[in-house]
Amino acid sequence: MTIPEALRFRAGLQVADIDPSATPGFDGSKADAAAVQAARSQRLAELQEMLYASSKGGDDHRSVLLVLQGMDAAGKGGIVKHVVGAVNPMGVRYTAFGKPTAEELAHDFLWRIRRALPPAGHIGVFDRSHYEDVLIVRVRNLVAPEVWGARYDEINAFERELVDAGTTVVKAAMFISLDEQKEQLLERLDDPTKHWKYNPGDIDERLLWPQYQEAYQAVLDRTSTDYAPWHVVPANRRWYSRLAITEMLIEALEGLQLSYPPADFDVETERQRLLSS
Amino acid sequence: MTIPEALRFRAGLQVADIDPSATPGFDGSKADAAAVQAARSQRLAELQEMLYASSKGGDDHRSVLLVLQGMDAAGKGGIVKHVVGAVNPMGVRYTAFGKPTAEELAHDFLWRIRRALPPAGHIGVFDRSHYEDVLIVRVRNLVAPEVWGARYDEINAFERELVDAGTTVVKAAMFISLDEQKEQLLERLDDPTKHWKYNPGDIDERLLWPQYQEAYQAVLDRTSTDYAPWHVVPANRRWYSRLAITEMLIEALEGLQLSYPPADFDVETERQRLLSS
Repeated sequence: MTIPEALRFRAGLQVADIDPSATPGFDGSKADAAAVQAARSQRLAELQEMLYASSKGGDDHRSVLLVLQGMDAAGKGGIVKHVVGAVNPMGVRYTAFGKPTAEELAHDFLWRIRRALPPAGHIGVFDRSHYEDVLIVRVRNLVAPEVWGARYDEINAFERELVDAGTTVVKAAMFISLDEQKEQLLERLDDPTKHWKYNPGDIDERLLWPQYQEAYQAVLDRTSTDYAPWHVVPANRRWYSRLAITEMLIEALEGLQLSYPPADFDVETERQRLLSS
Repeated sequence: MTIPEALRFRAGLQVADIDPSATPGFDGSKADAAAVQAARSQRLAELQEMLYASSKGGDDHRSVLLVLQGMDAAGKGGIVKHVVGAVNPMGVRYTAFGKPTAEELAHDFLWRIRRALPPAGHIGVFDRSHYEDVLIVRVRNLVAPEVWGARYDEINAFERELVDAGTTVVKAAMFISLDEQKEQLLERLDDPTKHWKYNPGDIDERLLWPQYQEAYQAVLDRTSTDYAPWHVVPANRRWYSRLAITEMLIEALEGLQLSYPPADFDVETERQRLLSS
């Protein structure tokens, strides 16, 4: 089974049963993974170029959207740096969704999300996403239960629309253990060059771990669809989660059966024009 | 003299006198450049992380804006892929400016430019820019002479405003020779995987080479200021132009005297909170 297949959410899976140190679909070591990662990053970059090229004629509106979710220190930033960083920035549209601004709060929760969607030919990357509106918002009671309660269906309808419009939605829920999070946060505290990554509020969220587990369970149960399935990514081993998400993107892009678009001009005519210019 | 110093536009320099095959400030070979490039890309990535970190407290609004201009096939895309591609995509805001849309044309020429400016802590990358409004627009008479004629001063005032607001503006005018452009365009025609990069309109622009030289001369003469100077980048040797623009970005970032921001929380308190959580 490929890594993405092994990680696809299956009905009945319990968040409490996830082993964050597992490496589903990959039985090599960290050193093995490094070699595979280099080759697969290269493959990802090639596919991204073909996606980008395909959109240039104006008729092909396909795009890919990577949605990254996970608790603080789950490694979302590392995915951006190392996995997304391997492809041409020209074809990437990255957005981090933090605490909503006053303007964002004055609109429907999907307003800021829609504005950040990737154009044709691009890979969009959401570092947190509309799922925060059923995660922190639910755990912290930021809106009434009937409001966040309605959002699961709204999210499914929204993603259905994206898929229908040509966007392949790749969703990664990254799971680390409570102990691994402690290690990671301690590392940030111990290294003055990492203090900027530390936020005292992270501990407040950490103390709500069981409530977040429950909220993630609801996300997986209610928003993993056949057109936009969730992938449950064990993330204690960063070399694995990076390889896993690389593979998920490659699978999505290969599914598009991409090729370089044919010339929409006569090559010989152009050659003559060029040579005589 | 460093590469950026060697490339800084000096009053009186004539575009017709630029040697696009020169390598000012670097007397090594292509192989030498490759080794230097790897080390300097690493340095650039470190500085970019510090810039990003500095903005996190909310008080530091500094950013960097790289403006890339050059004729078709001058290598702008290679700069994005190889130079910009070396830094964390989280801190990059890339925008390509093509033919304006109807909505953009319904606004002042700087409207779409302002919308794409980098937020605090980011490196903005303009692949073409507001300078198109005094380049193709001037050469092709897309607006009346008094309209584009007023834009040089408007651009200077705009860039003055950016610099005052904390944005370091790094401007690179990439110059290739007419022969080198022919080679590059032929390569695109000869390789079906590059047809998507070829646009018959490129030849139309190529036929206006002298008019573009004149328009570039006016850009350099009128918009190279002490607060936002132009750099004249010989671009026939792509290994050189990549190294040159890497060095320009490093110079800009080092000029900011960056450091990781101090913690805005008590480290020992947080460690105790974390350990007991």
